[in-house]
Amino acid sequence: MNRDIRYNQKIIRYENNTLFTTFDDYVTEFPLTIMINGEEFATIICSPTNLKELVLGFLASEDIILKRQELKQLDIDDSKGFAYVEITYQLHERTQLSTKRLVASCCGKSREFYFQNDAAMAKTSMSNIQLYPEQILMMMQQLQDESATFQATGGLHNAAISDGQHFFIHRQDIGRHNALDKLYGYCIDNDIAVRNKILIFSGRISSEILIKAAKIGVGMIISKSAPTTLAVQLANDLNITAIGFVREGHFNIYSHAHRIINVNEKNEKEDAES
Amino acid sequence: MNRDIRYNQKIIRYENNTLFTTFDDYVTEFPLTIMINGEEFATIICSPTNLKELVLGFLASEDIILKRQELKQLDIDDSKGFAYVEITYQLHERTQLSTKRLVASCCGKSREFYFQNDAAMAKTSMSNIQLYPEQILMMMQQLQDESATFQATGGLHNAAISDGQHFFIHRQDIGRHNALDKLYGYCIDNDIAVRNKILIFSGRISSEILIKAAKIGVGMIISKSAPTTLAVQLANDLNITAIGFVREGHFNIYSHAHRIINVNEKNEKEDAES
Repeated sequence: MNRDIRYNQKIIRYENNTLFTTFDDYVTEFPLTIMINGEEFATIICSPTNLKELVLGFLASEDIILKRQELKQLDIDDSKGFAYVEITYQLHERTQLSTKRLVASCCGKSREFYFQNDAAMAKTSMSNIQLYPEQILMMMQQLQDESATFQATGGLHNAAISDGQHFFIHRQDIGRHNALDKLYGYCIDNDIAVRNKILIFSGRISSEILIKAAKIGVGMIISKSAPTTLAVQLANDLNITAIGFVREGHFNIYSHAHRIINVNEKNEKEDAES
Repeated sequence: MNRDIRYNQKIIRYENNTLFTTFDDYVTEFPLTIMINGEEFATIICSPTNLKELVLGFLASEDIILKRQELKQLDIDDSKGFAYVEITYQLHERTQLSTKRLVASCCGKSREFYFQNDAAMAKTSMSNIQLYPEQILMMMQQLQDESATFQATGGLHNAAISDGQHFFIHRQDIGRHNALDKLYGYCIDNDIAVRNKILIFSGRISSEILIKAAKIGVGMIISKSAPTTLAVQLANDLNITAIGFVREGHFNIYSHAHRIINVNEKNEKEDAES
């Protein structure tokens, strides 16, 4: 199975009024089947990097593990595309949680059995971070600078976590949610406190992405794309600052603007100090 | 509930070193709950347009209705966001179909209980359409010209069906799959023969999109974005012509290039005729 994030294949190109054979890079979809306690649970199609983080974040996102200790073992067989997970309880003990299902907007096809539980389980942010506008612009610039693979193939999502100064982790995946699950898995595995950190994301802020940000635990999400109405409503409810369209020296704040330090205030402070 | 495809809301904008209040359009996520024979089946988050088509295409995509006659009734209450569906059989009679689930790459979070069945049920294309390269470029140009809403908000996917000359239908949705389900629903409802038609799509050709194209029944899919490795593999298997990166006078053919008429051949034909 191909395990490169990109793959070079023969194609036929049309250019200058001519068809000719050439080679081109495109992104890999890697199917990873997750076995839980010996039973097939799900197959994720992902970019084949950081698979342990991905599975860990996926299990947490799915409420399969509510705390790290519920995971007994996690082995990846990446030659065959399998993740073998052992958890401390039997899955059917929790199935009563999943009574309704929701099809997500991100692609309109994700059948969710747990969205309502999920939204209910997402905690209101207690983050008290405050940032200057320049920091928002800087973080998005950093995401773009680091996203070399994205620029080469145009097919990968990028996500990172920062404290406003430095990136702690930056992950890529063909799947929006996978990119976030890789961050989530890393934070769980390394016991990172995320309350006062910021999620920087290359894609649109949909309701599902917003809920995932809340589950990861960040108080602010910034994106170069637009949020949706439902995402803004949830951001308002969950005390999360949602910032979109971060590009070329400007951005829009859609919720909880108190975490952005007023520029005039900053100038006054600087005037007073000088 | 808001039923506009876009929505104008107050935001705080940062520009020219200043924070100020303004208004901005962003796209609506509309939750539509589908009840089948009186029981809640799924909630789709979508753009609130063409909801009947969407539900019909969704039911067909999910193999809930294998033929039009299995649908007894379909009513939409769009003020509350409910679709009431009556089918001719009891759902649990077919649940044995759904034993495995797959998380799709398009967002990495779509939990599919039927992907393997789906791929197995997707029929090999019997399309014998042949097109000149200029027609490929023209169809993509037409999609872009018609996608005014997409350009205004940057948050909607566009999909259309053409015979190489004219668009039969063009739909938009916040969800990639929803846009395709709206086309699918329209084709079913209007008994459109699609074997020799072309699907034009604004988003990436992932494996799921390819499978949906096969279910709809088209023999060719063209996109301005990249396909994935898995999508190309499926396109090869299902005899579908996959064309990507259609922009500014060029494109790439990833599978079954025989449906594109060789340009030199065309020139020779024109020379012979003149």
